[in-house]
Amino acid sequence: MSTTQLTLAEIFSIAQDALTQAGANKENADAVANTVMRAERDGSHSHGLFRIPGYVASLQSGKVNGNADPKLHSRTAVALHCDGDLGYAPLAHQRCLEPLAEAAHKNGLAVLSITRTHHFAALWPETEALAKHGLTAISCVSYMPSVAPFGANKPLYGTNPLSFAWPRPDAPPLVFDMATAAIAMGDVQIAARDGKPVPPGTGLDENGQSTTDPAEIIKGVLLPFGGHKGSHIAMMIELLAGPLVGETASFASKERDSGDGGPPQGGQFILAMNPEILSGGVWQEQSEEFIKRLGQLDGVRLPAERRYQNRHNSGPREINNNLLQKIRSTIS
Amino acid sequence: MSTTQLTLAEIFSIAQDALTQAGANKENADAVANTVMRAERDGSHSHGLFRIPGYVASLQSGKVNGNADPKLHSRTAVALHCDGDLGYAPLAHQRCLEPLAEAAHKNGLAVLSITRTHHFAALWPETEALAKHGLTAISCVSYMPSVAPFGANKPLYGTNPLSFAWPRPDAPPLVFDMATAAIAMGDVQIAARDGKPVPPGTGLDENGQSTTDPAEIIKGVLLPFGGHKGSHIAMMIELLAGPLVGETASFASKERDSGDGGPPQGGQFILAMNPEILSGGVWQEQSEEFIKRLGQLDGVRLPAERRYQNRHNSGPREINNNLLQKIRSTIS
Repeated sequence: MSTTQLTLAEIFSIAQDALTQAGANKENADAVANTVMRAERDGSHSHGLFRIPGYVASLQSGKVNGNADPKLHSRTAVALHCDGDLGYAPLAHQRCLEPLAEAAHKNGLAVLSITRTHHFAALWPETEALAKHGLTAISCVSYMPSVAPFGANKPLYGTNPLSFAWPRPDAPPLVFDMATAAIAMGDVQIAARDGKPVPPGTGLDENGQSTTDPAEIIKGVLLPFGGHKGSHIAMMIELLAGPLVGETASFASKERDSGDGGPPQGGQFILAMNPEILSGGVWQEQSEEFIKRLGQLDGVRLPAERRYQNRHNSGPREINNNLLQKIRSTIS
Repeated sequence: MSTTQLTLAEIFSIAQDALTQAGANKENADAVANTVMRAERDGSHSHGLFRIPGYVASLQSGKVNGNADPKLHSRTAVALHCDGDLGYAPLAHQRCLEPLAEAAHKNGLAVLSITRTHHFAALWPETEALAKHGLTAISCVSYMPSVAPFGANKPLYGTNPLSFAWPRPDAPPLVFDMATAAIAMGDVQIAARDGKPVPPGTGLDENGQSTTDPAEIIKGVLLPFGGHKGSHIAMMIELLAGPLVGETASFASKERDSGDGGPPQGGQFILAMNPEILSGGVWQEQSEEFIKRLGQLDGVRLPAERRYQNRHNSGPREINNNLLQKIRSTIS
């Protein structure tokens, strides 16, 4: 696999150029490019430049509004709603996460329901940002059906990621961000591109049979992680990120989608809670002792540790040449 | 395994007698006996009379307050706190779930933080009750360490159940209630009692080796469901049901515990959300269509379906005779 070294500024810039050329205004392009750059910075290639062709496709097709003007309104003091104006999610986050944090700080908790948005990134940028405000956060999105509920061999769930972040006084937040599919579709796509097998239990081929060939799984269906219990979590996410916030579940997001290769319209659920209020002010010592004991166990690595390590490296990143060529071909 | 048939009224009565004899006042005994009876009614033996010896042990030792007077206060309009007064959890629920439902109805969402309580039951009674008020609910508790975080072979997490309930207009709520251990400790204990092996991946023996012998796992450690992803969920529950609500994580609950065989003091997190407000009034059609499609897939059974089927049977239940003898020996 041949690669080119790009600085983080170059990664931002190539993403920004591609998005702008495809029709996004500066504010929308910058918000997405920043999200893409931060994914590459943190070592999450499947959410980095790898996504640009999809972002571009949906701007070019007109499905996604490159001039989106997401608007916040308060249904109650703690129930905030953002109409994403059919744009990509990062600009909605840029405008609405601070008001969400303020509402949770003041009242103890608050929810941001995002509708009419296209989410094509990781979820940790949202939850980590809230945890940096001293809040614990939970967020999830659904997508298009690619995961079979436990026991079935037909897709109904998206890969349905769930992210959780917990604030720490003298350390970066404890954050996990995981697909409830056995593996993220982005990682299956990268394995297929690189010709590598995936672990058993990842998915079924188009005939409903187990396979470790990522190309067969792309034609077939993914499985949830953790059998029936993981399948329950995936189901919960369909309901939270869809109907609860006033949007569609994955099946309906797909039925509405144009099939242009980019992300469908859908919703996002973001819950922020203030441990200072909910605990009556006594959370910090206990949570730090718990995290210390967790980190000291042999064989345990705290979630997000690798991401934070990667982040300390401000040097260039290795970018796949085929991908670069593909992105550059969209920039005139 | 010899059994005796008991009516639901007899199950309630024997539980009530045992709890009263052990020192609980009528209000506390009735609340717990009702929870135990409903578990047997729904076919959940591991949360039914099987728990009475543990309930009794902690009343007799004085660890649990049989005359608990749980008190609700509002930290904000949406952050409610219940001091459990060191009693068993069901009376706290009886007093606090209605006010939680009212707060969520009015504001869109609310949290009930329960502290100084002893929770020894399933979680679906709490979440199902909230869903019957038209709310979606999430609840979790931690316990004492019996589950090793992914990668480790020493316990840090409790079996840490998570329950989720979703309201339906013309059907009982969609509810799941699952341990984040690969299997609930109650089921391991029942397998040990009945001399049956448990599935591979359930736990490790005291030397950190895999085993399917439940008696060895009771001496060793359980594993989380679903590898590192299930382990993340278990970690989240430690933080939500412990520090977030102002209580201890499992490790500290155990350090404080007297070891009398009953449940430790700990916390409970209960979140209630009003889909009518969070969705702007458009949730119901989409969620019903999603649930319909899920239920129609070959190989899929909706969660809680078996519980609701059992519930329709108002006849007597088969109760293990050794267990009955054990309980009756505590009633003079």
